[in-house]
Amino acid sequence: MKVLPEKTVERLSEYRRALIKCLDSGQTHIYSHQLAKLLNLTAVQVRRDLMFIGYSSLQRKGYDIKALVDLIVSILDAKEGLNIAVVGMGNLGTAITSYFTGKRSRLNIVAVFDIDQKTIGKAFNGIACYNISELKKMVQEKNIKIAILTVPPNVATQTANDLKEAGIAGILNFTTVPLHIGEQIYVEDYDMVTSIEKVAYFVKNK
Amino acid sequence: MKVLPEKTVERLSEYRRALIKCLDSGQTHIYSHQLAKLLNLTAVQVRRDLMFIGYSSLQRKGYDIKALVDLIVSILDAKEGLNIAVVGMGNLGTAITSYFTGKRSRLNIVAVFDIDQKTIGKAFNGIACYNISELKKMVQEKNIKIAILTVPPNVATQTANDLKEAGIAGILNFTTVPLHIGEQIYVEDYDMVTSIEKVAYFVKNK
Repeated sequence: MKVLPEKTVERLSEYRRALIKCLDSGQTHIYSHQLAKLLNLTAVQVRRDLMFIGYSSLQRKGYDIKALVDLIVSILDAKEGLNIAVVGMGNLGTAITSYFTGKRSRLNIVAVFDIDQKTIGKAFNGIACYNISELKKMVQEKNIKIAILTVPPNVATQTANDLKEAGIAGILNFTTVPLHIGEQIYVEDYDMVTSIEKVAYFVKNK
Repeated sequence: MKVLPEKTVERLSEYRRALIKCLDSGQTHIYSHQLAKLLNLTAVQVRRDLMFIGYSSLQRKGYDIKALVDLIVSILDAKEGLNIAVVGMGNLGTAITSYFTGKRSRLNIVAVFDIDQKTIGKAFNGIACYNISELKKMVQEKNIKIAILTVPPNVATQTANDLKEAGIAGILNFTTVPLHIGEQIYVEDYDMVTSIEKVAYFVKNK
């Protein structure tokens, strides 16, 4: 299969989460319009996305939820799992580590990093905090592929470059600094200021 | 002006932040291709967005940065400012309060809420934490328009309904639960799991 568009990947992730909830509550099948409603989408959008990944339901009962979840897992997840590091253990890094730990079995936070001597050596949700000077060594040792970047803005670019040099393949960027570090590394910006400004704009224009 | 599309609002917010940085470093004018580069966009996209808000530059030196920032401010910001509450003061609520406090002068966190007696009465970055039972009273008293929702998933829907009833107009939803609370209230989902799964997908497909 070709690499999917970003927005499709986002929706597949959301479908999966909604579908797993349905399974947990004992539901076995779901119609496109029901799944659409759970995610505030149109049924046409849902059907198009699922046809796009080669899933079509001829059953009167709707989609087989278990089969659909398995298909999404096979598309989104790396078979052997992916190892993640959180870089910058201030309030935000701490919160994110706590948020993700144990959430997704194939995405594992295996190390966290900081520059503060008081923080280095501590455990965060059972995960050891290393000195950022050990980044390259630990990335190789623990086969870390993804970094969640939560350092202060003034060191964001430098740290991103260090991550790139250490062999990281993708960054989830929680800083307010846009990163320009080339095509080899996938960067997803996670900008809280933009989100709250967006809410503010639509509240103002009600 | 008509209400702008969501993606345009997001980009305006990002333009503003980038432009303010340019101003801070002494730059007075900027070409569309320069602004585009700062945000990993095409120059055509930038020019289209700015024409859309009625800004065109006939100057050889490029856009006048100060004038452009002022225009974006007049479009995005509420004149009298907007008051915000953070609801749920766990790790994430604490981090977010610290992240936003003092960042944007027209978006002010004026109260935070929790249900835990140990947390109620404490101050977070100087902002008092109230019992969630006082939500309605405080929303009216402090004229709160926006809530940042950081409660556990099992109480997300109930709390969102409480926020709606209390008169909140917009929610930035940090829980993993999609909220279905009607059209009167603007909801922006801020889903960390989807973002990290997206990074993982593109890392896997490199």
